Amino acid sequence: MDTALPPVNHQHVAFDDGFVLECGVALKRLVVAYRTYGRLNADRSNAVLVCHALTGDQYVAETHPVTGKPGWWEMVVAPGAPIDTDRYFVICANVLGGCMGSTGPLSPRDDQEVATPWGTDFPPVSIGDMVRAQKRLVEHLGITRLFAVVGGSMGGMQVLEWAATFPEMVFAAVPVATAAYHTAQNIAFHEVGRQAILADPDWQGGRYWESGRIPARGLAVARMAAHITYLSEEALSRKFGRRLRPGPNLAHGGLTMFGEMFEVESYLQYQGSTFVQRFDANSYLTITRAMDQFDLIAEHGGDLSRAFAGTRTRFCLVSFSSDWLFPTAQSRAIARALNRAAANVSFVEITSDKGHDAFLLDEPDFHRTLAGFLGGCAEHAGLPA
Amino acid sequence: MDTALPPVNHQHVAFDDGFVLECGVALKRLVVAYRTYGRLNADRSNAVLVCHALTGDQYVAETHPVTGKPGWWEMVVAPGAPIDTDRYFVICANVLGGCMGSTGPLSPRDDQEVATPWGTDFPPVSIGDMVRAQKRLVEHLGITRLFAVVGGSMGGMQVLEWAATFPEMVFAAVPVATAAYHTAQNIAFHEVGRQAILADPDWQGGRYWESGRIPARGLAVARMAAHITYLSEEALSRKFGRRLRPGPNLAHGGLTMFGEMFEVESYLQYQGSTFVQRFDANSYLTITRAMDQFDLIAEHGGDLSRAFAGTRTRFCLVSFSSDWLFPTAQSRAIARALNRAAANVSFVEITSDKGHDAFLLDEPDFHRTLAGFLGGCAEHAGLPA
Repeated sequence: MDTALPPVNHQHVAFDDGFVLECGVALKRLVVAYRTYGRLNADRSNAVLVCHALTGDQYVAETHPVTGKPGWWEMVVAPGAPIDTDRYFVICANVLGGCMGSTGPLSPRDDQEVATPWGTDFPPVSIGDMVRAQKRLVEHLGITRLFAVVGGSMGGMQVLEWAATFPEMVFAAVPVATAAYHTAQNIAFHEVGRQAILADPDWQGGRYWESGRIPARGLAVARMAAHITYLSEEALSRKFGRRLRPGPNLAHGGLTMFGEMFEVESYLQYQGSTFVQRFDANSYLTITRAMDQFDLIAEHGGDLSRAFAGTRTRFCLVSFSSDWLFPTAQSRAIARALNRAAANVSFVEITSDKGHDAFLLDEPDFHRTLAGFLGGCAEHAGLPA
Repeated sequence: MDTALPPVNHQHVAFDDGFVLECGVALKRLVVAYRTYGRLNADRSNAVLVCHALTGDQYVAETHPVTGKPGWWEMVVAPGAPIDTDRYFVICANVLGGCMGSTGPLSPRDDQEVATPWGTDFPPVSIGDMVRAQKRLVEHLGITRLFAVVGGSMGGMQVLEWAATFPEMVFAAVPVATAAYHTAQNIAFHEVGRQAILADPDWQGGRYWESGRIPARGLAVARMAAHITYLSEEALSRKFGRRLRPGPNLAHGGLTMFGEMFEVESYLQYQGSTFVQRFDANSYLTITRAMDQFDLIAEHGGDLSRAFAGTRTRFCLVSFSSDWLFPTAQSRAIARALNRAAANVSFVEITSDKGHDAFLLDEPDFHRTLAGFLGGCAEHAGLPA
């Protein structure tokens, strides 16, 4: 399969009995790539499923095989960390539609004689589809109940979906920096990114593997636009302000003044250019679409509390004060719905100026909250300390 | 000159004695395209200069010659309106670097034998350059003092620059929805737009007039990203929410689910596609760069009050509560600096859920504020009612 991503044999499980998507398409084969950390205990009661965000993947707590960088949540998932791998068995699966080994647009299509990649013919998937794919993995691992499901941003959407769809399988749920539906503004930002990809002639109608040229510039612009939404105005001002650095001395003078550029420009360009080395453009289209479609309120007749009626799951909702992509009001609305459903729920807004990205960063208050909640739940669940 | 913009003979004045830009480049010729409304009184004391925003132009209060749409501020500039054309003589000039007739990247370059357009070789311009070009026009019209200078967003930057640089020429100043400097977040959003343009192969290093193909897709993406920042989350939710409409039934199924798209996506795509019919990509690069460079605080040694020391100009600052691009805090900082300079200043935050765009929309509170302030100033200036 000729793609821009380096070939890595990701740990995975393949289900050859098919998988029917919400859109009605039946995949003949479902591959779920995943990683685990820690040890499953004898009664299989200590499993924590971590759900990753839009551009995350299963390499939570180890060096990434493509980028060589540390895992995206090494501060949270480690021995002695809030999700303590000495105590819990941590599972993370690459989402359905992703590009790190799970079935997605890079996978060979299974509806034709000749196996070319799905590309943009890959059927639309939903957050619900992602969760049902994870459930197949969890069952494959012999686990009938997850001690906890934890995730931020799109990962938080999966946590909510898990709790709403398979409540008996979720003892504790931690939806972080997330929402029960994607707002018009969030959809709009995603659409800018998609249009940037579609505008790149190297996208080639999504069949870019044929030429070996990927829509790197469009995908980089998409990443840049998204990246701004992950940061707060305060964080950008603090990190970069209006500081200048030497810029490319371009022939076209209109682009630089006195041969300088702003540091924030250089930073964004770097974010865009490194992203395309680890992410597939068609996956980006597929997964952003899944997020946009997510609406747990509409799915339950306009009343989110119905999604959680009778639930015995313990919830801990976390938001960050400067997150304008998934603002606190969105978490508060979920907390209210859970209250209406008489659920066991705690809700913490962490004061931070780091914006949406805070859930990935060194936020001691958040980490203490997570550790405390999971520790309390573990006691109630009778997990040995 | 082969460009995508239809040829229109914009009303203009040409200065053939040259114009030295802040960057040091000396233009041999300066053309300022402009429109006026109302009548200049006998002692030339009733002139109001309106300064337009990034993608605005001089067609304030009349049908636009390219788009055929109404002027962008017809609600504000008209007989009996807040900027009453029965009372005031209103001038609006296309900014230096623009694409509606003033000297800019579409103009023939004057530093070579063969007159091709400047394109991206057009030198970088500043907000200060724009204002000095307007000053040439104002003087050409025989006006030595403007009764008022009014503008929103980048227009507001020009108002501040006018008041700081030529205080004796400005009796009253109304900077609306603006800031004394462009923040890191605002620069970041502009950079996404610029990268989208540069990523379009039809940009062709800025020499797109040679092939006759303009970077329409890149410019459309830039416009889409910017447009989101002009609206508030509330406005987007109210206008579009998560409403669906029939979408293109694309072969690539991953792009639509059940053949539908969100209304907000369709709206943004429309905004992008119509923008490219009236705006030049190189102008967009030049003008966004001018905005990014604007920093009246740094220019005055870190103390904005020095920009206005001893001023006798009367100021009315206006912000809108849901404007997150130029938030109220930015206007408040200007008001405080003016207070430190012992200036005559009033500051009004208009409650609105329409975001930055509110300054262009039907906001009765804003219009009443503007009318009242100008009326009071006119009395002080001794203008006949």
